[in-house]
Amino acid sequence: MTMKIPFRAPALAALALCAPLLALAADAKAPKQPSQPPQPPRSSADILATAPAAVWREVDPDNLLVMTLPQGQVFIELAPRFAPAHVDNIRALARGGYYDGLAIVRVQDNFVTQWGDPNADDEDAGIKGKAKPFPAGAKSKIPAEFSIPLKGVPMTVLPDVDGWAPRVGQVDGFPAAADPKKGTSWMAHCYGTVGAGRGNAVDSSTGAELYAVIGNAPRGLDLNITVVGRVLKGMEHLSALPRGGAAMGFYDKPEQKLGIERVALASALPAEQRPALQVLRTDTPTWQELLNARRNRGGWFVHSPGYTDLCSAAVPVRVKPSPGPDVKLNEPKSPETRR
Amino acid sequence: MTMKIPFRAPALAALALCAPLLALAADAKAPKQPSQPPQPPRSSADILATAPAAVWREVDPDNLLVMTLPQGQVFIELAPRFAPAHVDNIRALARGGYYDGLAIVRVQDNFVTQWGDPNADDEDAGIKGKAKPFPAGAKSKIPAEFSIPLKGVPMTVLPDVDGWAPRVGQVDGFPAAADPKKGTSWMAHCYGTVGAGRGNAVDSSTGAELYAVIGNAPRGLDLNITVVGRVLKGMEHLSALPRGGAAMGFYDKPEQKLGIERVALASALPAEQRPALQVLRTDTPTWQELLNARRNRGGWFVHSPGYTDLCSAAVPVRVKPSPGPDVKLNEPKSPETRR
Repeated sequence: MTMKIPFRAPALAALALCAPLLALAADAKAPKQPSQPPQPPRSSADILATAPAAVWREVDPDNLLVMTLPQGQVFIELAPRFAPAHVDNIRALARGGYYDGLAIVRVQDNFVTQWGDPNADDEDAGIKGKAKPFPAGAKSKIPAEFSIPLKGVPMTVLPDVDGWAPRVGQVDGFPAAADPKKGTSWMAHCYGTVGAGRGNAVDSSTGAELYAVIGNAPRGLDLNITVVGRVLKGMEHLSALPRGGAAMGFYDKPEQKLGIERVALASALPAEQRPALQVLRTDTPTWQELLNARRNRGGWFVHSPGYTDLCSAAVPVRVKPSPGPDVKLNEPKSPETRR
Repeated sequence: MTMKIPFRAPALAALALCAPLLALAADAKAPKQPSQPPQPPRSSADILATAPAAVWREVDPDNLLVMTLPQGQVFIELAPRFAPAHVDNIRALARGGYYDGLAIVRVQDNFVTQWGDPNADDEDAGIKGKAKPFPAGAKSKIPAEFSIPLKGVPMTVLPDVDGWAPRVGQVDGFPAAADPKKGTSWMAHCYGTVGAGRGNAVDSSTGAELYAVIGNAPRGLDLNITVVGRVLKGMEHLSALPRGGAAMGFYDKPEQKLGIERVALASALPAEQRPALQVLRTDTPTWQELLNARRNRGGWFVHSPGYTDLCSAAVPVRVKPSPGPDVKLNEPKSPETRR
């Protein structure tokens, strides 16, 4: 076989796209049966390409964590709405250069990639003593932030059932859930979700040890640990790492442990180094058209479930100005936006 | 920080285990609120360790595909119940050494890793001409096998709602779904699911091009393509590969393309080379105890959803005799069985 991309791009494109395209469903009246309309709706790529600038929001540089690894950069948007204390602490840790020189210590297949100082948030004095000192401004004890009051949370609710929570949807572009009876809302564990590792004490996390979901959505973690944000770009630098050979995917070979060169807030970087990442607003007609276009596809598809799940409905991310080879779009669950 | 595994294993173990442990739910009466019973049920590891041999079934060597890559071996169980024509063809292709020397050509983050000959199942004559010839016994045209009649399918039904299908559960250890009204059943796309790539024609797949799911379950693919089985062991050899830089994750750098040394049926290997893989039977009290133990955990967990989704309920796999360093358990979604 040749090394070039196969000629049958259309079919492969469909195969590549059907995950996000079939995943989203907004119109409850959409046909459950195969449909190949003579004039199919615009593709998601076309919709995004022609959407007005106003449907995109700039990512606040104070909420954008830039982690530089030997193989590339990972961009994480923090969610102060859901985890204000943790986000403040992570900002303080980043500003103080705390993460610089630490490493990725764990990669468990189909679960999480974890980095930082695993000794930092342990209750054991013997271990605590081995922890890397915190910089000024960072706290060694902050409250658990598993959920927030639902009142006032601007959720773009998904119409489809979710077995894990009474209500799910997008909040500020983050996958989230809510329980109207309890009046609570929280961020959900989807591919790319970033959380703060903790010990047995619910308030033992500080942000000194973070993890990103690299496999099937472990929604069972929801409400059991503090979620601090999601990866907007660079997931492949966390998901394609060698899996750890020790229990729970911890690295047992020194050469496997990947050093973190630097973790900085975008706001602390020189203007020319700040990535111009934008996240699609979900309170827009564009998002709704995207949902409908994704649900009503014909062509390659012969079955449309007329349904989506929260983690298959990731909100598109783009880099502005127009992406070049080195800053191509990389929204984990919307590969078509990468074209 | 040190290079050794952090001392706070209990907490990390809980973090590592909660995905599969919280994921499964069998008892509708289980408390929705936090529970820390003074005497928690046995752990999943204990249950599996003490289960009678009868709860494990040997994998039929005629259904076990062994793919040898430079970095290790991937073991795929084929599902003749769901895709008899494709499984027969894949057996013929493997017996004829068809896959040997082909390569992994595509790795799209949070979607699939694909291998084989991308030209083999294309309708375009120009491309078809570039396809690697099939060995004797392999057919270039077989029917699409997107679903089978539900009647007689031995499904261990999951009690929890699934938005993608009216009914879901385990069949022969494979994640599956069913539509009682239509009287159909099919395999679902979960982490580790293996399918046969196709062109625009539903019957253009032959098994010459295969893919494995390496990200969040792309259930939207269900009923749109022929699923042939699932990876039982060695997922990390497919999931940790560098992502492709071209559209849809195709490799654009020759040095990235990973050559396949050999793909053989276990039945074609010398007895001493056959992996003794076993899959837990789901029609057993052990499976039910596993579900209950996973649902009723206390300790690290402060919230239990009392729910699972199909793809979080992967059936445990083990290697018998007792695993050594080189044949450790590696069931994608049940990391605790790896201890």
